[in-house]
Amino acid sequence: MKTVLSKMGQRTGVPPISWLMQTALTRPKLISLAAGFTDNATLPVELSRKLLNDILRSPKTGQPALQYGVTAGAENLRELTAKHLQKLDGKNATAKTHASGRVIISGGSQQLLYMTLEALCDEGDLILVEDPTYFVFLSILQSRGIQARGVKLERDGIDLVHLEKVLARLKKSGELRRVKALYLVTYFQNPTGATTSLAKKSAALKLLKKFERAAGHPIYLLEDAAYRELRFDHGDDIPTALTLPGAKERVIYTGTYSKPYAPGARLGFGILPEPIFTTVQRIKGNHDFGTANLLQQLLARALETGLYDRHVVKVRKNYAKKAAVMKRALAEHFPANVEIWESGGGLYFWARLPKGISAGVKSKVFQAALKADVLYVPGELCYADDPSRAKPDNEMRISFGSASEENIRQGIARLGAVLRKFL
Amino acid sequence: MKTVLSKMGQRTGVPPISWLMQTALTRPKLISLAAGFTDNATLPVELSRKLLNDILRSPKTGQPALQYGVTAGAENLRELTAKHLQKLDGKNATAKTHASGRVIISGGSQQLLYMTLEALCDEGDLILVEDPTYFVFLSILQSRGIQARGVKLERDGIDLVHLEKVLARLKKSGELRRVKALYLVTYFQNPTGATTSLAKKSAALKLLKKFERAAGHPIYLLEDAAYRELRFDHGDDIPTALTLPGAKERVIYTGTYSKPYAPGARLGFGILPEPIFTTVQRIKGNHDFGTANLLQQLLARALETGLYDRHVVKVRKNYAKKAAVMKRALAEHFPANVEIWESGGGLYFWARLPKGISAGVKSKVFQAALKADVLYVPGELCYADDPSRAKPDNEMRISFGSASEENIRQGIARLGAVLRKFL
Repeated sequence: MKTVLSKMGQRTGVPPISWLMQTALTRPKLISLAAGFTDNATLPVELSRKLLNDILRSPKTGQPALQYGVTAGAENLRELTAKHLQKLDGKNATAKTHASGRVIISGGSQQLLYMTLEALCDEGDLILVEDPTYFVFLSILQSRGIQARGVKLERDGIDLVHLEKVLARLKKSGELRRVKALYLVTYFQNPTGATTSLAKKSAALKLLKKFERAAGHPIYLLEDAAYRELRFDHGDDIPTALTLPGAKERVIYTGTYSKPYAPGARLGFGILPEPIFTTVQRIKGNHDFGTANLLQQLLARALETGLYDRHVVKVRKNYAKKAAVMKRALAEHFPANVEIWESGGGLYFWARLPKGISAGVKSKVFQAALKADVLYVPGELCYADDPSRAKPDNEMRISFGSASEENIRQGIARLGAVLRKFL
Repeated sequence: MKTVLSKMGQRTGVPPISWLMQTALTRPKLISLAAGFTDNATLPVELSRKLLNDILRSPKTGQPALQYGVTAGAENLRELTAKHLQKLDGKNATAKTHASGRVIISGGSQQLLYMTLEALCDEGDLILVEDPTYFVFLSILQSRGIQARGVKLERDGIDLVHLEKVLARLKKSGELRRVKALYLVTYFQNPTGATTSLAKKSAALKLLKKFERAAGHPIYLLEDAAYRELRFDHGDDIPTALTLPGAKERVIYTGTYSKPYAPGARLGFGILPEPIFTTVQRIKGNHDFGTANLLQQLLARALETGLYDRHVVKVRKNYAKKAAVMKRALAEHFPANVEIWESGGGLYFWARLPKGISAGVKSKVFQAALKADVLYVPGELCYADDPSRAKPDNEMRISFGSASEENIRQGIARLGAVLRKFL
């Protein structure tokens, strides 16, 4: 008998990270610097208890929280989210673009990325991604038969010259009409920690616009700001692409409350242009007709009481401290010829070994690290299957998110010892 | 410029029910007997407060509840769910089939239905459905370009003779190799309230098996038991198809905690055979890498303390009482030539007007009902787009789920007055 699975079902691969996680489970002494988990110590346990108590103390607020809601999300949370984004974007925000009517609430920003790709892409379509990029996004592309082309990444965002070259090449080959979007993880990127400057967002948006005529349809800038609020310092952050001219028609923005608040109360959100907004809303109706109201009301209350903002300040301080611990350990234990990308936020350092030294899944370095009971994410997993270039395999993503300070020190010491053997 | 949307994006229609809901919002005096919402009065507000307090009282249980989990679902909830289903299926349950390792937890059973169709169906594939069936399932099919064929529904489940005829016809036309599953809503069906007998489940499973050779691949029985626990009496219920010989390889079972517990803490679950289990798990990794842990821990605690079961007893009593109120009102106000299907559970009555009298969206009956400030779901919305038969339009789904007893009485009185004018 033939398989009964759909083409998508047959294509959908084992997530690379699940193998890493399995490995972690079988070695109890292993220090994992691989997982992108948030720090248990920062999770708002007492705060959530208090807020949920308030919501569920009376039937008046408790019943709606336990009832079905509206597909696009609870009105109050959509409004609070629009205001929150307005505040983050400061004087650059516009009421027209940062409007609650354009907000969709989702079960994590991952779900919104998924539905956006459903709305935009047929099998064989193309998405431009950073080289390297968020690997679960790549898993969605792979599963759905969507092609990816990588654009070189610099410390302040994509290489614009390369972006133009890639677009021009696709135009020449006739593939431009299959290009639907450029996907950028713009703040403290997973996996490199790189943050995209506003100038680069603006230039990228203009470049996409320039190639639209040849494409025959809009090419969107899909801005994933998942790590935006995990900034170490408390100054202004970089405005989103939503603040740029023409953004209302061409920028798809996704964000999340999971990382800054709690992954266990998984909530994401997005600001979407038409016709993507309406289409994603309908698709969400088929997925789940709206994310669990109880979680939405929890976050709404956290936001409206200002307790969310206060919590995020604590979270940032904690990650800044842990990043500093890792930075010192890297300086102490890593060979000098390993290039380190330091970030101003997020959960990751990015390390690049000298060319020719593999840190990939099957490499001696990875195996030796495992033997020394320390795990990292091989950088090669974060590169799209792009036939136009080979995947670099000399990089590693190292996370300080969930490990304790002591484990960060020990883990980096172990990893440093391994690297010194090979470099 | 051409549209940028995918084929699926272009196909995905306005959900029929959203139009009904919009209508309800614009008429403040309207009594809605349309929504499939659960009754606000039965929502476990105080119970959820207590359980969440227990979970979040200490970091030991609070932190894991707020952290990321595992894609297939929290181990404890998967085990409790398997046990729960074993208990419901009584002596017919087998440890092999009702196994926690085969359980997936999802964001409502709707999400699981969606992912199951992703795993199974390409555009152009075929699913057999009851005539009529759950309309959001039909929306998924329509959106994904999956065809449907209706099988006549009797009060104790599908018409087996018709099922065999449909399968034989598809075999003859060469379409059988596109048939992936038969979808049955087996308990207090949405929209008719019909419950499928075990004998019919067994016969249907055997029929599907008989046609597998010609199909060239398995044909699954997809059993949606969403309303199972909303049974009015408290005796044994009918065992699921999971208890039948061969079920481990051919039955996909979906259930939900949303209806019996709380839609706002949206959780569904399924028991899936291979290779569907592994494929859906991977797909879920791409959707959201696992449903919010906080909700999972809430339900796990409700189940393990026995408070879930106690709550469900109350819920059942409440719906039984409301169904009785509606039954009396129907007897009093509806013309005698309207055929009423009464159910032993769930949220709906099904009313069939004499042939030739339309109750459809554009009918005089529906418009007059709206004018009289009462809303029902036109039955025609629950019929698949099946080119081999016309859609009946003389039926209505009438829900006692969310309306108060007083509104049930008034709503039925209004609807009865409208019907008496036309019959």
